[in-house]
Amino acid sequence: MTVTLDDLTRTTGEWLRGEGPMSDVVLSSRIRLARNLAEQPFLSTASSTERTEVFRRLTEEIASSPFGADALLVDMADTDEIDREVLVERHLISRQHAAGEGSRGVSISPTETQALMINEEDHLRIQVLRSGMQLDELWEEANRIDDLLSQRVAYAFDRQLGYLTACPTNVGTGIRVSVMLHLPALKLTKEIERVARAARDLRLAVRGLYGEGTDTVGDLYQISNQTTLGKSEEEIIQTFTGSIIPKIVEYELAARASLAKRRSDYLDDKIWRAYGILCHTRSISSGETQSLLSPIRMGIHMGRFDRFDIPMLNELFLHTQPAHLQKIHGRSMDEDERGVERARYLRKRLAAGSKPSSA
Amino acid sequence: MTVTLDDLTRTTGEWLRGEGPMSDVVLSSRIRLARNLAEQPFLSTASSTERTEVFRRLTEEIASSPFGADALLVDMADTDEIDREVLVERHLISRQHAAGEGSRGVSISPTETQALMINEEDHLRIQVLRSGMQLDELWEEANRIDDLLSQRVAYAFDRQLGYLTACPTNVGTGIRVSVMLHLPALKLTKEIERVARAARDLRLAVRGLYGEGTDTVGDLYQISNQTTLGKSEEEIIQTFTGSIIPKIVEYELAARASLAKRRSDYLDDKIWRAYGILCHTRSISSGETQSLLSPIRMGIHMGRFDRFDIPMLNELFLHTQPAHLQKIHGRSMDEDERGVERARYLRKRLAAGSKPSSA
Repeated sequence: MTVTLDDLTRTTGEWLRGEGPMSDVVLSSRIRLARNLAEQPFLSTASSTERTEVFRRLTEEIASSPFGADALLVDMADTDEIDREVLVERHLISRQHAAGEGSRGVSISPTETQALMINEEDHLRIQVLRSGMQLDELWEEANRIDDLLSQRVAYAFDRQLGYLTACPTNVGTGIRVSVMLHLPALKLTKEIERVARAARDLRLAVRGLYGEGTDTVGDLYQISNQTTLGKSEEEIIQTFTGSIIPKIVEYELAARASLAKRRSDYLDDKIWRAYGILCHTRSISSGETQSLLSPIRMGIHMGRFDRFDIPMLNELFLHTQPAHLQKIHGRSMDEDERGVERARYLRKRLAAGSKPSSA
Repeated sequence: MTVTLDDLTRTTGEWLRGEGPMSDVVLSSRIRLARNLAEQPFLSTASSTERTEVFRRLTEEIASSPFGADALLVDMADTDEIDREVLVERHLISRQHAAGEGSRGVSISPTETQALMINEEDHLRIQVLRSGMQLDELWEEANRIDDLLSQRVAYAFDRQLGYLTACPTNVGTGIRVSVMLHLPALKLTKEIERVARAARDLRLAVRGLYGEGTDTVGDLYQISNQTTLGKSEEEIIQTFTGSIIPKIVEYELAARASLAKRRSDYLDDKIWRAYGILCHTRSISSGETQSLLSPIRMGIHMGRFDRFDIPMLNELFLHTQPAHLQKIHGRSMDEDERGVERARYLRKRLAAGSKPSSA
């Protein structure tokens, strides 16, 4: 009944499902709550035994909770590097969690909408994720999981401060709300900087595909709140749903419409060259693949590209990333080998997936 | 019997015939002789009437010579800008001749191996041109034309100096020998600068596709002698045939072999990406088209690309240049329109010309 990691790898998971509200611009939305057990020290000071005890306790409680019954528990100590990277590429765990040490893991629901990290920076990080703009639904889901768990374990909590966390920026609600946006038109028209400034003025962080410290790749921008103290969860979510995200979506769609009207040849050239390169390359990096898939994603949403659809694009997007590529290919490869294998994979998939020419 | 300019436009002409010795590296070779009539002043000081008289006299003598019987005489005064540019793109006249003023023209043999410019910088420029490395044959041909004409007109000639010409650098033999080389591998391996230095040490000029003052485009390099005084024609030609050109060809082929052996993925990627872009672009410049055709040309010669052959490549090379494109399209277009039309032309030709996939 429980899925395995290999089962997951065969699908594109939730974050690349390509559906949900505003999904022509919003790839996915996510909420995570940082929690720690009252009975154990924070991980920075915990002994190996205490750390193991946190892991044991939390995995037991999650597994016996209704939401955890079907979940896949991944014990990082038993998981090789490629599989850990697969989880990062699927946005189920952080880079830090993959690279970490000691007793730690993640509990993943079969649809990949829930991923509970144990012993990352905090004892527990409840993460819920959905494709498209679904923060209200996510908050309900995260809240439910949080409530159920809080009936089983005592959280580190302070009446004045709220939830206590390893890093001071998470103290309070312990919530991080983030939305992954695809903004190719704002990038092309160079309006992206104005949008990023507006977000920063609202004390929101603008980051790349894999969160903190990563570059934007493929015109994907992750917008998230920076502080969790002094506002309620609902207020924080309201910042996203009430104004900033719908506004950015509106700007992006306006920029796309303007490009289509004023620079349609340039726009189509961008889209179709990317397709031409992906169809014929003999060696390509993961980053360049994502950059080339970006205008095609926009092209599909704008009805200007029809050789394949969003589900196939998302599959290409995920399966060409280093760990997925190696997982599919069945063995570990160095960067040069991956470049050649990635190109071979793309050519094969695009030749198979092509609809009749409409050029 | 005589061909028209429109007839010519339908073929790729001699310089892109793609045959002849060393044609995997040497696109074409050319010899031109600068001559002036003794009876008339040089063009820099000639009156309009004198200039017209030179034109009348030379066209008459050429037309009644055996080599000129089938030739197409183009009177520049009657020729519109696109047709003049067509002649430049076919390497039958210089840019200066196309842009010039006053009574002037060119006599072109049906196979385009002979192009005699009248009233360019000198009264007469006898040009002979062949695909591949054929300087000895060309010298014989140029010499024959020169002899036949010298029986009909008196050339400006000085016992000490030799042939007198408008520009001092042409005084003496009045010969310019030039060879058009395709050197993509030397460019990729960055050895091209060493080759250019070696050529310059031999007092040879290294130039781009359209001669003097033009940039190299599509890895095409034109090597020609700089001075014509103090050496016989045969000695000048010997510099090319005896050492420098066979040596450069050898270097280029060695660089290609080395790339194939050590960096085959990189090489194939270069070739096939270029093809992918050409197949799918929606707007492309003439310069970029030539740059992309370059690795494909190399790929065909190396047996690494098989979607089309050299004759088709040369047709694409010529027909995507601005004047040919407009001629084929049947009307004058601005740069933006040309970019879109060029992309359309390429997509149509490549879709039609594609052989079954071997990817």
